[in-house]
Amino acid sequence: MNETPQAQAQSKTFTHAIRVRWADCDPARIAYTGRIPYFALEAIDAWWDVHTGYDWYRGNIDRNVGTPFVHMSIDFRSPVTPRHMLICQVRLVRLGQSSVRFAVAGRQDDVLCFEGEFVEVFVEADAHKKINVPEDMRPKLEALVQG
Amino acid sequence: MNETPQAQAQSKTFTHAIRVRWADCDPARIAYTGRIPYFALEAIDAWWDVHTGYDWYRGNIDRNVGTPFVHMSIDFRSPVTPRHMLICQVRLVRLGQSSVRFAVAGRQDDVLCFEGEFVEVFVEADAHKKINVPEDMRPKLEALVQG
Amino acid sequence: MNETPQAQAQSKTFTHAIRVRWADCDPARIAYTGRIPYFALEAIDAWWDVHTGYDWYRGNIDRNVGTPFVHMSIDFRSPVTPRHMLICQVRLVRLGQSSVRFAVAGRQDDVLCFEGEFVEVFVEADAHKKINVPEDMRPKLEALVQG
Amino acid sequence: MNETPQAQAQSKTFTHAIRVRWADCDPARIAYTGRIPYFALEAIDAWWDVHTGYDWYRGNIDRNVGTPFVHMSIDFRSPVTPRHMLICQVRLVRLGQSSVRFAVAGRQDDVLCFEGEFVEVFVEADAHKKINVPEDMRPKLEALVQG
Repeated sequence: MNETPQAQAQSKTFTHAIRVRWADCDPARIAYTGRIPYFALEAIDAWWDVHTGYDWYRGNIDRNVGTPFVHMSIDFRSPVTPRHMLICQVRLVRLGQSSVRFAVAGRQDDVLCFEGEFVEVFVEADAHKKINVPEDMRPKLEALVQG
Repeated sequence: MNETPQAQAQSKTFTHAIRVRWADCDPARIAYTGRIPYFALEAIDAWWDVHTGYDWYRGNIDRNVGTPFVHMSIDFRSPVTPRHMLICQVRLVRLGQSSVRFAVAGRQDDVLCFEGEFVEVFVEADAHKKINVPEDMRPKLEALVQG
Repeated sequence: MNETPQAQAQSKTFTHAIRVRWADCDPARIAYTGRIPYFALEAIDAWWDVHTGYDWYRGNIDRNVGTPFVHMSIDFRSPVTPRHMLICQVRLVRLGQSSVRFAVAGRQDDVLCFEGEFVEVFVEADAHKKINVPEDMRPKLEALVQG
Repeated sequence: MNETPQAQAQSKTFTHAIRVRWADCDPARIAYTGRIPYFALEAIDAWWDVHTGYDWYRGNIDRNVGTPFVHMSIDFRSPVTPRHMLICQVRLVRLGQSSVRFAVAGRQDDVLCFEGEFVEVFVEADAHKKINVPEDMRPKLEALVQG
């Protein structure tokens, strides 16, 4: 595996494509502001699935591990419309004792539409009690952190 | 007008109640993260309606004045559930040349569930071109700013 | 109780008002088709709350009684917009061994916007197993049936 | 083109796959009833895009042709969950003077989850006035009708 550090870093950036539709748009003919968090969250859910084998549904129900959000912040740079695919890039930017911070950027036709940060904390799902990052997940996650 | 400054400030805080429902909740039995921005935005839309006579729909369609969002940030403090009304307080915290910044706090049963800030900019709706705060709205809005 | 049969029938009709918003509308400047079932379902959820003391959330979680839908049909008569309140009338039209059928009509400014029928079946929520109408609910529900 | 009538009919059945997620599910751990119409509508929107080159967004905005719904009916046969892809089959079952009727069936892991019918009428989008099926679309649509 002779990948350069750059290529490796690149591989830490996960891409999730979303087809924006009529149903997502408001009378301004652009995706409604409230839909943008949904898009970013969908990309993060897909990230979990691909990188840990557990999307939120399986993590909560099959493993009793929940990851509720404690923070989100989004800057809206350019309108999102159905005219181009929405390409969401997800990066794990910080791994704490019991939390993960993601950066998500959404682009259409190479134009940055939004970028934001999202923080989840690990909890025992049924008790809704904070826990540390599960032991078996920590090494996988550490390898994916991109400063 | 013998109101104390405190009472006056209080009157600048707008309250909007939302009935959270089964439809808003995910398998963790709490309102889905993506729903919280919807709740906050609904409270802001209600603020516009009450304070200017134009909700987003009428502002865009009847006045050709749009106010797209350029920023939102939310801290999630406690889960939102259907067990109590969600009381959203909206304050206009900054009025710029062509932008407005709101603080929104959501409480259930006197527990702070989320708080966040939301920035909108004024645009000519059909041209999606930035404009100054409309002349007739500025005095009304200035009187509502709560530092 | 000197109510005429007509007045009595009228009292069996439950009314739930919904404030339609910008967030509900699509680029055609009317509520998106997919939102209409949400409105009708919200009205039915409110019906349960008022008439039995259990909305879907409490029924499922506190009583372990679920009422998933097996059918819905809706005729869309006129567009729904944010210009008027959406007044939803809910009537229980049939009570079966383990099912309930509702008729819902939505009006704005006295214009019929949609009407539909919705059928739920009773299940043991955690087992997702069909059950009869719970004994304590049947008399209440029977009294509300409106042919 | 030596396709048998059977193969031809088969090709008239359009398939659209949807990844159901945590965000779509309610506390019963299945997709919320109100999401099912969204899924079916998304499949129909994809059908338009593939078969006519106009999804609802482009049809309305670029061609001024709208196709609002006048009817939907859905039978819910089995719960929809995130455990399997949701495979939606869309068939054009009737073409009228100014209307189209679709049948949509949703399956997960070869189990029928829902099936329904949906009727749209053609309108001049800005005037919201009923029109006939556009001349250039009629032959394309006629070729796709599957009785």
